[in-house]
Amino acid sequence: MSAEVKPDAGMSLCPLGTETPPERELVCIFGTGDLGRSLGQRLLQTGYRVVYGSRRPHSCGPLPQGAQVMSHTEAAQLAAVVIVCVHREHYDFMEATAPQLKGKVLVDVSNNSKKGLYPESNAEYLQSLVPAASVVKAFNTVSAWSFQNGLSDAHRQVYLCGDSVEAKQAVRELATRLGLSVLDRGSLSAAGEVEDFPLQLFPEWRLPLCLATGLTAFFFFYLVIRDVIYAYVVQDKDISFRIMVSLANKVFPIVSLIMLSLCYLPGVMAAFLQLYRGTKYRRFPDWLDRWMLCRKQLGLLALAFAFLHVLYTLLIPIRYAIKENRTTVLDTTTAWRTDSYYSMGILGFALYVLLGITSLPSVSNALSWREFSFVQSKLGHLTLLFCTLHTYLYGWNKFMRPSTYKWWTPPGYMLCLVVPSVVLVLKLLIVLPCVDRSLGRIRQGWERTGPEGEGTKPLMGGAQM
Amino acid sequence: MSAEVKPDAGMSLCPLGTETPPERELVCIFGTGDLGRSLGQRLLQTGYRVVYGSRRPHSCGPLPQGAQVMSHTEAAQLAAVVIVCVHREHYDFMEATAPQLKGKVLVDVSNNSKKGLYPESNAEYLQSLVPAASVVKAFNTVSAWSFQNGLSDAHRQVYLCGDSVEAKQAVRELATRLGLSVLDRGSLSAAGEVEDFPLQLFPEWRLPLCLATGLTAFFFFYLVIRDVIYAYVVQDKDISFRIMVSLANKVFPIVSLIMLSLCYLPGVMAAFLQLYRGTKYRRFPDWLDRWMLCRKQLGLLALAFAFLHVLYTLLIPIRYAIKENRTTVLDTTTAWRTDSYYSMGILGFALYVLLGITSLPSVSNALSWREFSFVQSKLGHLTLLFCTLHTYLYGWNKFMRPSTYKWWTPPGYMLCLVVPSVVLVLKLLIVLPCVDRSLGRIRQGWERTGPEGEGTKPLMGGAQM
Amino acid sequence: MSAEVKPDAGMSLCPLGTETPPERELVCIFGTGDLGRSLGQRLLQTGYRVVYGSRRPHSCGPLPQGAQVMSHTEAAQLAAVVIVCVHREHYDFMEATAPQLKGKVLVDVSNNSKKGLYPESNAEYLQSLVPAASVVKAFNTVSAWSFQNGLSDAHRQVYLCGDSVEAKQAVRELATRLGLSVLDRGSLSAAGEVEDFPLQLFPEWRLPLCLATGLTAFFFFYLVIRDVIYAYVVQDKDISFRIMVSLANKVFPIVSLIMLSLCYLPGVMAAFLQLYRGTKYRRFPDWLDRWMLCRKQLGLLALAFAFLHVLYTLLIPIRYAIKENRTTVLDTTTAWRTDSYYSMGILGFALYVLLGITSLPSVSNALSWREFSFVQSKLGHLTLLFCTLHTYLYGWNKFMRPSTYKWWTPPGYMLCLVVPSVVLVLKLLIVLPCVDRSLGRIRQGWERTGPEGEGTKPLMGGAQM
Repeated sequence: MSAEVKPDAGMSLCPLGTETPPERELVCIFGTGDLGRSLGQRLLQTGYRVVYGSRRPHSCGPLPQGAQVMSHTEAAQLAAVVIVCVHREHYDFMEATAPQLKGKVLVDVSNNSKKGLYPESNAEYLQSLVPAASVVKAFNTVSAWSFQNGLSDAHRQVYLCGDSVEAKQAVRELATRLGLSVLDRGSLSAAGEVEDFPLQLFPEWRLPLCLATGLTAFFFFYLVIRDVIYAYVVQDKDISFRIMVSLANKVFPIVSLIMLSLCYLPGVMAAFLQLYRGTKYRRFPDWLDRWMLCRKQLGLLALAFAFLHVLYTLLIPIRYAIKENRTTVLDTTTAWRTDSYYSMGILGFALYVLLGITSLPSVSNALSWREFSFVQSKLGHLTLLFCTLHTYLYGWNKFMRPSTYKWWTPPGYMLCLVVPSVVLVLKLLIVLPCVDRSLGRIRQGWERTGPEGEGTKPLMGGAQM
Repeated sequence: MSAEVKPDAGMSLCPLGTETPPERELVCIFGTGDLGRSLGQRLLQTGYRVVYGSRRPHSCGPLPQGAQVMSHTEAAQLAAVVIVCVHREHYDFMEATAPQLKGKVLVDVSNNSKKGLYPESNAEYLQSLVPAASVVKAFNTVSAWSFQNGLSDAHRQVYLCGDSVEAKQAVRELATRLGLSVLDRGSLSAAGEVEDFPLQLFPEWRLPLCLATGLTAFFFFYLVIRDVIYAYVVQDKDISFRIMVSLANKVFPIVSLIMLSLCYLPGVMAAFLQLYRGTKYRRFPDWLDRWMLCRKQLGLLALAFAFLHVLYTLLIPIRYAIKENRTTVLDTTTAWRTDSYYSMGILGFALYVLLGITSLPSVSNALSWREFSFVQSKLGHLTLLFCTLHTYLYGWNKFMRPSTYKWWTPPGYMLCLVVPSVVLVLKLLIVLPCVDRSLGRIRQGWERTGPEGEGTKPLMGGAQM
Repeated sequence: MSAEVKPDAGMSLCPLGTETPPERELVCIFGTGDLGRSLGQRLLQTGYRVVYGSRRPHSCGPLPQGAQVMSHTEAAQLAAVVIVCVHREHYDFMEATAPQLKGKVLVDVSNNSKKGLYPESNAEYLQSLVPAASVVKAFNTVSAWSFQNGLSDAHRQVYLCGDSVEAKQAVRELATRLGLSVLDRGSLSAAGEVEDFPLQLFPEWRLPLCLATGLTAFFFFYLVIRDVIYAYVVQDKDISFRIMVSLANKVFPIVSLIMLSLCYLPGVMAAFLQLYRGTKYRRFPDWLDRWMLCRKQLGLLALAFAFLHVLYTLLIPIRYAIKENRTTVLDTTTAWRTDSYYSMGILGFALYVLLGITSLPSVSNALSWREFSFVQSKLGHLTLLFCTLHTYLYGWNKFMRPSTYKWWTPPGYMLCLVVPSVVLVLKLLIVLPCVDRSLGRIRQGWERTGPEGEGTKPLMGGAQM
């Protein structure tokens, strides 16, 4: 290696206060904990100079090489941007530093351990303590661990909010240079929302999961009564052991099919609502909006249940090999029926899996809107059709047989056919040429009773059904 | 919360024309439809001021809080950047506004409902209407829905094109601040291409899908003749019901194996072409280039067919339990053969799935070139080897038996062994040390008959076979 | 199309030296190979002007339209940024060009074909040849192929390092405008590391793969001795053919369960270490750190083995249909046992798959820290519990039976139960309320013997167990 190689500029400890090249900005970090140290290390690596503010500058443990430590007030005076890596509970010391922080950009990175602990967000609280500074909420979605490990496949999304546009711009530049992807969430009043991001636990999955649990519980008890208790009462047989596998393998496909049809029902309903109203510019009712937003989760849960159904079904021949020699003479009709039944099931499941794969963020991001809506709408309805036919073929000629209706109740698979059949019939109506044409016009902005003078028709925004 | 918290700058309604802080740029949007409103909302949230231009400024429905509405000409005069959220059919009003748009950046966000509707792209048409403005095509891949829902896991990729570098730079900055990822596609003449992006429907899947359909159809009819019709004619048995499952389960693995080998054939052919030519600097023939570009799709379709084959196979014992008591005395050879046959199949399928997972965009992006090519080339050929052996073991001693060749035709699995065997033999030749060495030299830029004076050898660009 | 459409500025061949619009920067590329040409094409498309430096400017083959070619020295003088697309072996000509390169930004994009070929990195070698220039290492992770194909779903991550902050800033801007995502890796001394990125071959998979291979080999030989050799020696039966499927299907689940428990063992150990030490601020021993970093890989390999186990198991009834008529009279207890056994297996596998899906980069990036740790910790331990119960139910009453212990060795599944049982018991201890509370305090920064005066408690950095 040649002697001319310059010293490692990013790591050198330049004496502060003397002439340093103007391009190497100084950033101040309050707090020398995990996050403070990792963030400082990353800043140094990217070419910033870093100074730490600490209550006990002489005993704050190991810090990244190249950084300086001093008291909070000293450190605050040196930099234009101060990142506060301190728990909210200890923000009280900030009031004492307020004079030195006047006009500075204060970055609040804190998170709480629970939602709703405090009346206002941490960032707003900080702003109230140091009113003369411009507080920006940022970085709270990135962990110390991510900063240390190079961010290469970790969480890079940073949400920014604050009242000062200049302050936000400064933090945005800093974040971009650190290799993060920045999204502006507006004014500081949005800080509460941003602080809730790392705390949320699958909010969009809650409703679909409740629905799945409810349906599973209902059909489980329904089938326990119809199968196990009926056999015990009427035939005096104990088949309670069938609960574990046989019953589960009835409940899972039933719930799966209902969930899948519930995933496509709101789209059909929205279409009919638009047809009825004759415009697309009136908002859908709130419950329909919320329903449409959780279609993806409904579909993925339906896939999970279908997956369990497949595994349970394939296990049947392994279980207890009580296969008495059914050398049944196969008539061709039965053979065709059973084979169609199995084929529909397999093809339906394969399409299901395809839909699931297209729902993966990286795959759906690689699709154009038209491709995505083709897969989710065309192939989705085809999946529903296959799975519904699979269930109808399962029933076959049992629909008419009185012995099917034990205790005058229909079997589970008949109950579960109601919703998908409705969805498929409605969808069939929609794709009729005449209905399709007027729906298409409405979705392109045409209004049945709209004002006539409007020439500047708005653009369709990739409406996906 | 302290009283000093500044008012929400991003949402306040500043009176236009009075002194506003210089940093809050004003953006003008023509059109108050879905996209116009969503884009405006997002701009306001990010800290821009927004003014709408509308034909009927007093009756254009609800707009984002903080935005103003005025006539097109008034609005155009206020801002340097004008985003045109209007359908192309209504562009004619732009000519009237042309004087006010002189020197402005005009952003065309429009899409058409079909390809090839107009002779020139929408953006070029807009440029022709307002020649004194700098038209930039952008944002057409982002939907109103994405803008509203925070873009967090939606389509963020924006393609930019335009003739003015400054105008493009202005739009690039705007897009970046909105949290979008920008890719420059060159001059305005590329607008037609950019406008086709949201309309394309799996263009790269078309060829592989046609091939898969063709192969499936061919082998289906071939096997219908050999199995069903042969049985009907020669043995007078109706086994037409076997079409649904048994025949499908013969066609799927055959097509899968052929598609998989077609996925690796072009790489081998390219290598031999390079060896024959003695250089890597001559372009491959067009058909080979196109073939190589759809290898990923060929492989994924092959995986889909293999998946169906596995499902159909695992279903066999559940179907009609006509298992007569074959208490066959197993000789060890047969046991070894069948078990090897199944093992090869399972291992081949597991590797298949691994290849499929590595093809997911997020996974392949996390791999280095060397890792990617290791998986796709080494493991890929291993998969092909396992699946081919699986098929050979299936045939076993039937290759020599005359009864196999009904009507003098070979069974389907023998036909499908041709391509993979050729690929494997050719690949074997390539990995021979002597061939491998000279191929390696060629791929590093060495030329057999190249000029001798060239010292500045070019870099190899991660050629992946 | 209107006549006023401006000529395609990005592609026009402007005469160099005359007045060109100031905004169109000129970039010089040394070397006209694959990468040089692709990079040049991309630069031209993005609006840069490009000039090539070549040893033989008059016979360097086809170059992108709009670019100029001249000698190295001439080309170097024109641009502020020079990208060196030449193999390291040919760097010697750079010394001759050194005077013209004074003060320029030199971008080294080269890679080596192997690790450790040279004592210093290519970029440091280049810097030693041209000490008066500012060398920046960049673009070496992007291939010519990616540049040509629009980068839309290819590798976009660029690592940057260099000693001059201004030079890095210039290259960063260039890379950003090319649509790449930039990560600063510090000073030029990090170039060696950056150059190793494209050469690495699954470094983080090496340890888990070795472990998996070792465990597989051990249990394979253990079971061959206990099953095959025992049967041969004691019962004089040749059951060697069982190696292919039956034995494999014993080894795979054993290895899978051990790997899964090894994936959760370090987290439990770390918790106990923190409890013992009473602080989270002391570093874990190195082996524990390394172990924790490969948990993801351990888990994914465990999933792969579980997948093979499922496939092999589902194949059982298809294999040789030697199912003699076991019309066993099922007692309810046995039925409950076997069904629980299968249910646990299926549910465990389904959760396994769920864990695998959440490990996909695009899925885990879409999760918040709390969601990710919920899935990986809560659901992960549930998976381990299900799979362990599945194995216990498999053993059932064989634990007490002397005939189980052939040659006084326990069967494989008993051996493999040791580690998961230990992990589950330790985890159970940790979630006891009293232990959980003190662990929670420690993880929030509390120290048992810590100094009392420290008010500024550091932030917890999203510690995930």
